[in-house]
Amino acid sequence: MDGDRGASPHDRSETVADVGEFGLIGRVTAGRAQPPTTLLGPGDDAAVVAAADGRVVASTDVLVEGVHFRLDWSTPEHVGQKAIAVNMADIAAMGAVPTALLVGLACPKATDAAVAEALAAGMWKEAVRAGAGLVGGDVVGADQIVISVTALGDLQGRAPVTRGGAMPGDVVAVAGRLGWAAAGLAVLGRGFRSPVTVVGAYRVPDPPYAAGPQASLAGATAMIDVSDGLLADLGHVAEESNVAIDVRTDLVPVHQRLVEVASALGADARHWVLTGGEDHALAATFPEPAAVPEGWTTIGTVTRGNSVTVDGKPYEGGTGWQHWR
Amino acid sequence: MDGDRGASPHDRSETVADVGEFGLIGRVTAGRAQPPTTLLGPGDDAAVVAAADGRVVASTDVLVEGVHFRLDWSTPEHVGQKAIAVNMADIAAMGAVPTALLVGLACPKATDAAVAEALAAGMWKEAVRAGAGLVGGDVVGADQIVISVTALGDLQGRAPVTRGGAMPGDVVAVAGRLGWAAAGLAVLGRGFRSPVTVVGAYRVPDPPYAAGPQASLAGATAMIDVSDGLLADLGHVAEESNVAIDVRTDLVPVHQRLVEVASALGADARHWVLTGGEDHALAATFPEPAAVPEGWTTIGTVTRGNSVTVDGKPYEGGTGWQHWR
Repeated sequence: MDGDRGASPHDRSETVADVGEFGLIGRVTAGRAQPPTTLLGPGDDAAVVAAADGRVVASTDVLVEGVHFRLDWSTPEHVGQKAIAVNMADIAAMGAVPTALLVGLACPKATDAAVAEALAAGMWKEAVRAGAGLVGGDVVGADQIVISVTALGDLQGRAPVTRGGAMPGDVVAVAGRLGWAAAGLAVLGRGFRSPVTVVGAYRVPDPPYAAGPQASLAGATAMIDVSDGLLADLGHVAEESNVAIDVRTDLVPVHQRLVEVASALGADARHWVLTGGEDHALAATFPEPAAVPEGWTTIGTVTRGNSVTVDGKPYEGGTGWQHWR
Repeated sequence: MDGDRGASPHDRSETVADVGEFGLIGRVTAGRAQPPTTLLGPGDDAAVVAAADGRVVASTDVLVEGVHFRLDWSTPEHVGQKAIAVNMADIAAMGAVPTALLVGLACPKATDAAVAEALAAGMWKEAVRAGAGLVGGDVVGADQIVISVTALGDLQGRAPVTRGGAMPGDVVAVAGRLGWAAAGLAVLGRGFRSPVTVVGAYRVPDPPYAAGPQASLAGATAMIDVSDGLLADLGHVAEESNVAIDVRTDLVPVHQRLVEVASALGADARHWVLTGGEDHALAATFPEPAAVPEGWTTIGTVTRGNSVTVDGKPYEGGTGWQHWR
């Protein structure tokens, strides 16, 4: 930095172009503790991650500024947390434990370096919550911020729980929050910033990571990450398993906080719960009511057929949570 | 498609928005054969890939339209091939065999669906060349095409070959093409489309995948994927290994084709070979000349110190291949 200009309070912020690709990667990885599964961390051509099980679970998700997040609605740290959370939820939905994450970050050269560093800080924060390491990545210039995350996970000797194993006679249960992100999005869309509980739920989902392996151990026959909305994602389970699923609204938990927010906005809290995306709850099927583990809530049944119904009827409110905007 | 409009030759092309995320993923994965390492392929929350070694090698690279590729210089199929090749080269550079790939594709909603399908076709083509499977991914809307690829690989029981193991007394050797992509870029930059050998080398690199595990078996002490240019990437080896590397120009192969192209353009073929990026050759160090395997070319020596020199002197031509444009 030029000495004369360095003292001026009117200096423009340091950009990612100023810091450079290698400088930025150095800053966001320096001094971070890796879990024991990270056998070789960032800095070489590739990372090496333990896969003691002899298999590795892997999933990729991409988040785009203006489509999946807005930096006027969320801080960069929130966005970083969310990018990691949505991927680790996919790992949990197979019944696996997240072990490692790789991040591809495309962003404009003029992006404030502090924004990129805050994104990375959020990523580390969420990775640490689940015991996973941030083991590698790439930083490149682009017109718009695009964050691509690949999560790896370990099945710990268990069979993966797919979407295709539900059987007639099973019960359907959920773990984690439903409708909270939709409520938060509705609040932000009206120009409000509170209540912070629902706005915070939209900014950073809280996937029940441990509930995935727990369900697998309990004999779950099918499982899915609820990213597109409960009914839409149960639709994937019904289709892949070739079964019908009926959700009973008297069993679906609708939190009092959502009822209050919906009332204030003239919205329907139950609709948020049934169709709202981006909460990253888990939905699973179990062979009998007694198999549903603690912390999971039974919400319906699996029968022969090929549909998803609510109280025995097609849902009239529409099921789509549209990511492709 | 509307019957009346379907017959018109003036219909706009079908876009990725028309096909939708799920439709597009269905089209590009349907009927594709997966290798035996793909235990669970695309379509669920996550894929499951064999990691018989008990470890998995993983690397992510991001390619951005206008930065890393131009669709007026390369076909979408070329771009797809390149996106996969640059990642699998990173896996080979650890001494591992590529097993699986995950792809995050961000593209404008108005992108011709045929472009997205051709990108995917190129990806499959390159994956099959190395025996790897395309096991998962994500497709989202964005302002610009951004392709993020994560490659996974198997060490087959060997230790990873890092950048940090070179020792004074080692020899330096390379496998694969050097300077060809730079020559192709120079040709395209002048508005020409031939000679096709060098233009093709720029469009789709030809990494020597098998040479990575081969070098590892032969006792390579350090290895790197030459993505930024030979001298720049040997600089990473020198830095991580805390050694000096001297490259001897009388040993570095400069193909006659490059000499001809350079002559026609008034350029320096040796400069392309020493500094040109994007060929994805492999450079490695071996403990003695006799250890250098067939197909590898010895080009220099490792000594005490902390530098990269050419014929004993600092290289005057500049070493940078600038990805961050």
